[in-house]
Amino acid sequence: MHSSSLDTLDTPAALIALPRMQRNIARMQQQANALGVRFRPHVKTTKCAPVAAAQIAAGAHGITVSTLKEADQFFANGVTDILYAVGMAAHRLDHALALRRRGCDLKIITDSLDGARAIADFGRRHGEAFEVLIEIDTDGHRSGIRPEEDALLDIGRVLHDGGMRLGGVLTHAGSSYELNTPAALAALAEQERAGCVQAAERLRAVGLPCPVVSVGSTPTALEATRLDGVTELRAGVYVFFDLVMHNVGVCRTDDIALSVLTTVIGHQAEKGWAIVDAGWMAMSRDRGTARMGQDFGYGQVCTVDGEPLPGYLLSGANQEHGIVSREGTPEPDVATRFPVGTRLRILPNHACATGAQFPEYHALAEDGTVQTWSRFHGW
Amino acid sequence: MHSSSLDTLDTPAALIALPRMQRNIARMQQQANALGVRFRPHVKTTKCAPVAAAQIAAGAHGITVSTLKEADQFFANGVTDILYAVGMAAHRLDHALALRRRGCDLKIITDSLDGARAIADFGRRHGEAFEVLIEIDTDGHRSGIRPEEDALLDIGRVLHDGGMRLGGVLTHAGSSYELNTPAALAALAEQERAGCVQAAERLRAVGLPCPVVSVGSTPTALEATRLDGVTELRAGVYVFFDLVMHNVGVCRTDDIALSVLTTVIGHQAEKGWAIVDAGWMAMSRDRGTARMGQDFGYGQVCTVDGEPLPGYLLSGANQEHGIVSREGTPEPDVATRFPVGTRLRILPNHACATGAQFPEYHALAEDGTVQTWSRFHGW
Repeated sequence: MHSSSLDTLDTPAALIALPRMQRNIARMQQQANALGVRFRPHVKTTKCAPVAAAQIAAGAHGITVSTLKEADQFFANGVTDILYAVGMAAHRLDHALALRRRGCDLKIITDSLDGARAIADFGRRHGEAFEVLIEIDTDGHRSGIRPEEDALLDIGRVLHDGGMRLGGVLTHAGSSYELNTPAALAALAEQERAGCVQAAERLRAVGLPCPVVSVGSTPTALEATRLDGVTELRAGVYVFFDLVMHNVGVCRTDDIALSVLTTVIGHQAEKGWAIVDAGWMAMSRDRGTARMGQDFGYGQVCTVDGEPLPGYLLSGANQEHGIVSREGTPEPDVATRFPVGTRLRILPNHACATGAQFPEYHALAEDGTVQTWSRFHGW
Repeated sequence: MHSSSLDTLDTPAALIALPRMQRNIARMQQQANALGVRFRPHVKTTKCAPVAAAQIAAGAHGITVSTLKEADQFFANGVTDILYAVGMAAHRLDHALALRRRGCDLKIITDSLDGARAIADFGRRHGEAFEVLIEIDTDGHRSGIRPEEDALLDIGRVLHDGGMRLGGVLTHAGSSYELNTPAALAALAEQERAGCVQAAERLRAVGLPCPVVSVGSTPTALEATRLDGVTELRAGVYVFFDLVMHNVGVCRTDDIALSVLTTVIGHQAEKGWAIVDAGWMAMSRDRGTARMGQDFGYGQVCTVDGEPLPGYLLSGANQEHGIVSREGTPEPDVATRFPVGTRLRILPNHACATGAQFPEYHALAEDGTVQTWSRFHGW
């Protein structure tokens, strides 16, 4: 972590606007506080220790991770309360055990009888009472067991009777990314809540423990109006937001804390194109707004100070080349408007995907100072 | 670099099938030899020293890079003849100068008068005669100056009269990725050749030097039937190939040397889904086959031994979850066919984008041994 100035950064570079990030962190924490639940941010978005530290400083209880490498890295940075929220694969139980033996309070999840049996067998064999949550499917978009399925109770019994600690239930209504009205998001948030609470109550009704009821996705977390019966909220991308979240309707462009700093390296004046050095390697190939109401191409073009230039998009991308152009009629004087050497910022479609393209963020404070924050990569 | 076995790899992992890679390298080198030109592979695809070493061992003359970090890394690995094939930005001239002063035979490119002046001014100020190639636009898909433009000669004069070494001309007909017949590719290869040679002849006609005439993209390189007047061929993705190149028609699935090893971690049996631990973080968000004749989703599913399972695609992806499903009617016994713990390989849409998601490749030899080859990341 060191200080430098924005002017001396090479491009492309991933910038964090710190005042926006802090505002986003405060907003979600206030929402969790108002709803009377703990908040456990998903750190897969940033994979960056100072960002997680800011989330915890604001009141978060523990973190959520999507890989055991994230667990390793954040545990090495002093975070002990870690939920690994991807179905536990048997071949990773050794790794999970090693983390727990080193003092990490790692929680794991499963959504199948086979998975539960593998965990319980391994745990008994190694004298480890893993804390396991059961993943619930409340919107059909991915994994999890439906709240009403018989197998829910069987999974609970296999874990509990097998000597594991049944930590509770969790769900993630990821289909929220496909919605775009507060009413639809609030309805999905209620569906997410009700399904997860139903699963908890079924477990408790047969005498199984279920202390934690964990729900969330950025849109449902922000639009939920009550979380009765829920103990914990999870969300990830809210910390930076992005153009997909803008289209979903849960942030404005001036809430988006992540952008890619780029330099104009050429033009195709007749076509109204400025060529920049942010291609898909910098932005990622994520075209998440392509099928939404407003398609931002590979990103919204802003001035170097972060002011959006309406209608100017990163309309095309090769590996290290991006094409900046105006929607509709081409800009006739593109080379005058954006001379070679001009610096621009591009707001991304998807902050998790764009961030992953960079080994580090450059965190820009209100006073103009820049700190370099490393992020990790791989599995 | 160490040896291990495929069975002990954690997933997701990026595998290189070495016999396929060596066959792809030999095929392209033979094509260049048959056409009577030198071959300069683009190493942006792999960013991996042992792969570039295999290309050079097979007969390549120097390498092409897309970032100065690639130049730094490959120069540190002993490669000195390096062409940086992205328009030179003025703020990177210091970096380029430092590389040259350390003994790297770095060549740079430009496509504008402003760019040429910036290079010549900087070079004179520092007593460095940069070798500069002029980028030619032969298919309108990105950057470069058209062969017939007046400015071509002006750029040449600014560089030459300004004391720089005018290295020649280069072009990249990247629109070849949108074609899919040998005849159309051969026609574009001829257009790429003719345009670049025309630019060279115009420079020479006014007394400017133009020793190098450099062309290429994987599809046009493989389908070119003559390269009269060309001195150098460039291509990148051919070393691994991928599903986009399969759809373009320049490889078969059993030529694709890169795949992602993944593990089944769950099911949604009613939907016929197997959930695997290769999501978009592993595959990248590249959906390059989406608008082609055959859409492979996020990738073609194969057995752990690399045999394609026709009709089985990675049909959906979240960050660390992928959905394996059958096209058309769902697989009724998906949990029996692909039990939890099953290992599969996924062929990628775009090898450059998928490789970039991994800190290392696992290079699998004919005899089953596996070597770990690191690749680098960032700028």
